[in-house]
Amino acid sequence: MTVRAAVAGASGYAGGEVLRLLLQHPEVEIGVLTAGSNAGQRLGALQPHLLPLADRVLAATTAETLAGHDVVFLALPHGQSAAVAEQLGESVLVVDMGADFRLADAADWERFYGSPHAGTWPYGLPELPGARAALEGSRRVAVPGCYPTAVSLALAPAYAAGLAEPEAVVVAASGTSGAGKAAKPHLLGSEVMGSMSPYGVGGLHRHTPEMIQNLSAAAGERVTVSFTPTLAPMPRGILATSSAKARPGVDAGRLREVYEKAYADEPFVHLLPEGRWPATGAVYGSNIAQLQVAYDEAAGRILVISAIDNLTKGTAGGAVQSMNLALGLPETSGLPATGIAP
Amino acid sequence: MTVRAAVAGASGYAGGEVLRLLLQHPEVEIGVLTAGSNAGQRLGALQPHLLPLADRVLAATTAETLAGHDVVFLALPHGQSAAVAEQLGESVLVVDMGADFRLADAADWERFYGSPHAGTWPYGLPELPGARAALEGSRRVAVPGCYPTAVSLALAPAYAAGLAEPEAVVVAASGTSGAGKAAKPHLLGSEVMGSMSPYGVGGLHRHTPEMIQNLSAAAGERVTVSFTPTLAPMPRGILATSSAKARPGVDAGRLREVYEKAYADEPFVHLLPEGRWPATGAVYGSNIAQLQVAYDEAAGRILVISAIDNLTKGTAGGAVQSMNLALGLPETSGLPATGIAP
Amino acid sequence: MTVRAAVAGASGYAGGEVLRLLLQHPEVEIGVLTAGSNAGQRLGALQPHLLPLADRVLAATTAETLAGHDVVFLALPHGQSAAVAEQLGESVLVVDMGADFRLADAADWERFYGSPHAGTWPYGLPELPGARAALEGSRRVAVPGCYPTAVSLALAPAYAAGLAEPEAVVVAASGTSGAGKAAKPHLLGSEVMGSMSPYGVGGLHRHTPEMIQNLSAAAGERVTVSFTPTLAPMPRGILATSSAKARPGVDAGRLREVYEKAYADEPFVHLLPEGRWPATGAVYGSNIAQLQVAYDEAAGRILVISAIDNLTKGTAGGAVQSMNLALGLPETSGLPATGIAP
Amino acid sequence: MTVRAAVAGASGYAGGEVLRLLLQHPEVEIGVLTAGSNAGQRLGALQPHLLPLADRVLAATTAETLAGHDVVFLALPHGQSAAVAEQLGESVLVVDMGADFRLADAADWERFYGSPHAGTWPYGLPELPGARAALEGSRRVAVPGCYPTAVSLALAPAYAAGLAEPEAVVVAASGTSGAGKAAKPHLLGSEVMGSMSPYGVGGLHRHTPEMIQNLSAAAGERVTVSFTPTLAPMPRGILATSSAKARPGVDAGRLREVYEKAYADEPFVHLLPEGRWPATGAVYGSNIAQLQVAYDEAAGRILVISAIDNLTKGTAGGAVQSMNLALGLPETSGLPATGIAP
Repeated sequence: MTVRAAVAGASGYAGGEVLRLLLQHPEVEIGVLTAGSNAGQRLGALQPHLLPLADRVLAATTAETLAGHDVVFLALPHGQSAAVAEQLGESVLVVDMGADFRLADAADWERFYGSPHAGTWPYGLPELPGARAALEGSRRVAVPGCYPTAVSLALAPAYAAGLAEPEAVVVAASGTSGAGKAAKPHLLGSEVMGSMSPYGVGGLHRHTPEMIQNLSAAAGERVTVSFTPTLAPMPRGILATSSAKARPGVDAGRLREVYEKAYADEPFVHLLPEGRWPATGAVYGSNIAQLQVAYDEAAGRILVISAIDNLTKGTAGGAVQSMNLALGLPETSGLPATGIAP
Repeated sequence: MTVRAAVAGASGYAGGEVLRLLLQHPEVEIGVLTAGSNAGQRLGALQPHLLPLADRVLAATTAETLAGHDVVFLALPHGQSAAVAEQLGESVLVVDMGADFRLADAADWERFYGSPHAGTWPYGLPELPGARAALEGSRRVAVPGCYPTAVSLALAPAYAAGLAEPEAVVVAASGTSGAGKAAKPHLLGSEVMGSMSPYGVGGLHRHTPEMIQNLSAAAGERVTVSFTPTLAPMPRGILATSSAKARPGVDAGRLREVYEKAYADEPFVHLLPEGRWPATGAVYGSNIAQLQVAYDEAAGRILVISAIDNLTKGTAGGAVQSMNLALGLPETSGLPATGIAP
Repeated sequence: MTVRAAVAGASGYAGGEVLRLLLQHPEVEIGVLTAGSNAGQRLGALQPHLLPLADRVLAATTAETLAGHDVVFLALPHGQSAAVAEQLGESVLVVDMGADFRLADAADWERFYGSPHAGTWPYGLPELPGARAALEGSRRVAVPGCYPTAVSLALAPAYAAGLAEPEAVVVAASGTSGAGKAAKPHLLGSEVMGSMSPYGVGGLHRHTPEMIQNLSAAAGERVTVSFTPTLAPMPRGILATSSAKARPGVDAGRLREVYEKAYADEPFVHLLPEGRWPATGAVYGSNIAQLQVAYDEAAGRILVISAIDNLTKGTAGGAVQSMNLALGLPETSGLPATGIAP
Repeated sequence: MTVRAAVAGASGYAGGEVLRLLLQHPEVEIGVLTAGSNAGQRLGALQPHLLPLADRVLAATTAETLAGHDVVFLALPHGQSAAVAEQLGESVLVVDMGADFRLADAADWERFYGSPHAGTWPYGLPELPGARAALEGSRRVAVPGCYPTAVSLALAPAYAAGLAEPEAVVVAASGTSGAGKAAKPHLLGSEVMGSMSPYGVGGLHRHTPEMIQNLSAAAGERVTVSFTPTLAPMPRGILATSSAKARPGVDAGRLREVYEKAYADEPFVHLLPEGRWPATGAVYGSNIAQLQVAYDEAAGRILVISAIDNLTKGTAGGAVQSMNLALGLPETSGLPATGIAP
């Protein structure tokens, strides 16, 4: 089986990463690549690391250029996916790496994005309860946000097992690629190297409602999330520290048991052996989420540390994993379980 | 007035930083510099950035070499300060940048450090309630840990004003200099660049009891602290995200009011204007702590973000500030209010 | 004596650095600060590290706002300095940190900058033969480019002493602040962290004619310079490797002797002891140029390695040093001989 | 065909990288992994990015443990490969990633390494004239040094075509992984981040005679090389600036023509289109060498910029490429032509 894939938004970081993965996918043939303002340029001038595609010329992002593919990956600014998807036909698999179709609650969408809600598609985090089945055979996939991927994998098992009070506190550090490729002064190398800073403090980050949605679903009750994202001086990676008050009867053994069981069969979620801690450097370029759990007895809290590559498992890897499931391919096809280090 | 200062442990990062500050202090003359295994070497070979002291030769750390100074800064491995201090005489100001005399509770010390408790000295964080008075005229000072500096400045006002429940959650990122200059594989540039990782998760970090001590004192009741430190790919800086559940009646206005009042007259604590966020890059090399507060209404939590330079306000700057107070010098002498950026 | 100083272009990197230095200058009072598109903003929003000036509001860059100062520092895009300088009057010291008045040869200027030549001012690198005298009492100063500072200090003594053939080869690495604060995609943190790349290869960089001018003057004959600049993943610093074929009779001893003599009395040029090598990290934030020389016998070449902070000795420190000379102040006033490390 | 491969020295950076590549090689089965002082440990504790091998336990490096494989990769400290290789039998392919068998001249070896010369094996840089044929079917391969890979690819075509005078000047920047995983103070993250520094200046670096050997062979006459390596604040990558005086009659067109022809059919050497420049970030994790040429007419010099990943094309990728040739596999098997960016 050969799957013909198009990528809309191929000049950005998410688009580039999905191409890096598709290039090593044994059953995918890379079709049309499109861009907005970069249409007409050689890909080699914009993504020089993708040497096998250097001579490809970027088309404009239109329904016409994207027609005739089995799968179309959308890496577009939020608000633009619905219009494109509509014209692609229901038999084409559309994998949206943007935010448009992640939230089930239209009010949440409108509050955080300030525009009408486009709808809700099956959610591309197969490790969540029930998610894998919804992806199999689907022709629409909403790829999760990078932070919600790291945080939902970290806390969903605790909530599903009733270990934690429904008030989560999350602080996460992200590499700069999470902020995209548009040139903004505060993202200059001179500004970010040697510095850490927070943003979207106090519940303002757009990924907050997505975390609340996932954790509430796991818990079977409304979970609040205090989420603080920070910008770290590295190009890739998310390290999330997620915690919640433990419910009575929880101890370190029970906590570990729940996580071992939750992820025993997951190819891309790796609960580290006791005594070892996640590091974003260990998952650089891979589709792996590293996890470790701890129970702080003095503070009465469950802690889960998770590390992912924001562009791989956090975006493009999650997208390809969902494509595999949707098309009935082996779930791990084309997805590196090995990082690049040091 | 000229103060003659010795530095024991001048070849390490804390020792080097206190020398950098003393070099620009108008009333200090730098006396003997000592080291452990580096004794006998030129300082220029070990701290090439301290050009004016390049030809100084390091003496051994003994009571004899340290005699005859008005102030002695100790930058020694923990457990070694008491023996040196004892021999220096009670009229000499001893400023310990190590951990030995920070904790009031001997049991806490023994649990976290595994050795007998040496005692408790006045605590060198003058911005805490009551601390400044205890430092004035003192001849012994325990300089706070770097993380406790960032976190205590962040949360003490909230606890002192009764705004927060006594369960704090803290996640902080530190530059690598906080781990010292001893060569360890996990601190190699190859390992830390491009990566973030946690350590001492679950209440194991030795700075935890110090935070609990400070915040409990401010609150007037026992405060628990869930503290997760992380290592960030930068040489200097701590960014701490500290939060706690808000008590009834708290809102954003009340929160800001409390912090404005708490730090209105502090020369080295800067509550940023609304809408702006701390960054470690903005306090690089300065003695400033940048703070910002937020109230997350949906999660019901108070958040305080603080940024310091771990080696300056977090160690050597705090040491010099305390020296100034102890000796009756202007509190700000020799201490930069300006960072180096970008 | 109190000198009243204005800074035009105070929101950029050069402007910010000159302010950092002036803040610690004992005889300078900081007057008006101006900007282009940032006029009207608080400095604290643009240069948060300059806390003592946080509440200053930026004026527009006009002759009126800049009037009434003893010295005006210009940190403007090239081509704009002449118009401003003309209106400031001949008794005001104007220190131009841009390129406009560095070159003596109008044809060179026009070839590299593509606009009419504005003139030639005394050159602010006092360590070059004859330069100090020209600066004393001057009311106009052209601050050298950052690369020419590093390279001219490295090779001028060899050429002045007739040690080297007139064909220099220079490869230098610069931190990203050398490229300024304007947001460009290739300067994003995501792009520069973890990567090195060259630019302006083959003699195209605008600093090339300035190096040729300085080295030719030292040699008393035309010197060619093959100059390759590279962008390094760090915010500050230039490390230059400069070499030339040795003339007959040169050996390691003679080479060292020439450099020891050349810089014996220079407060800001530090020839390292044998066996030690310059590092940009050792001059971070200082006005020091570290130098080391080597004679490669097998290749028959003289090598000089130099390290400076591009924003300090390479721009704003050189500017303040020249101001000191022009105004008859101690040459070292306000200029750090100490770097910040690690 | 399935090739069974052992790796001696699997806990270091070169060993880890060859494993990363072998994991994606379609015809290789990974056999025994050995180490020195780390023998007995799980690989997961030392190379956490190699998840599929996490539970492998490291054996001691002995002839017995390494027996029974088709190919043995040696990533050992220099001087140790000969003893191991001798015992492995002549039918086993031994690929030495150390220095022991690279140099043809025993005197060169002894001068730079201070020990007896072990011998000379076919040189694993197939892109050099004649090298590919010598590798085909060989049972011994000496993998080139990382710097000589970058520099020989850069200058060999110019020398082979008679374009350049036999005096090369090379300045190269390397990521810190080139210095290995042994913990040394000057390689600490605190020391290397934000700093650049040279080492082995003046012809002292051990890779110098290897460059001279390769370029002299290409030129058909003795070529001198003035080589200055510098340490850059990044984990991986080499950017080399190599130049030489042009011989009469050379111009930009002729230069480009020679390089286009030299590398037209090479899968892993990519001469960039005119106007684009190599960046180490574009070859991160790939086996690609990016090249660009320039002719500086004013200085009369040919310049070649090359960028490689020091651990991939510069070490482990070169090793696998040579293995492929030696065993008659497709030369590109298991070798990424795509980098990871940003």
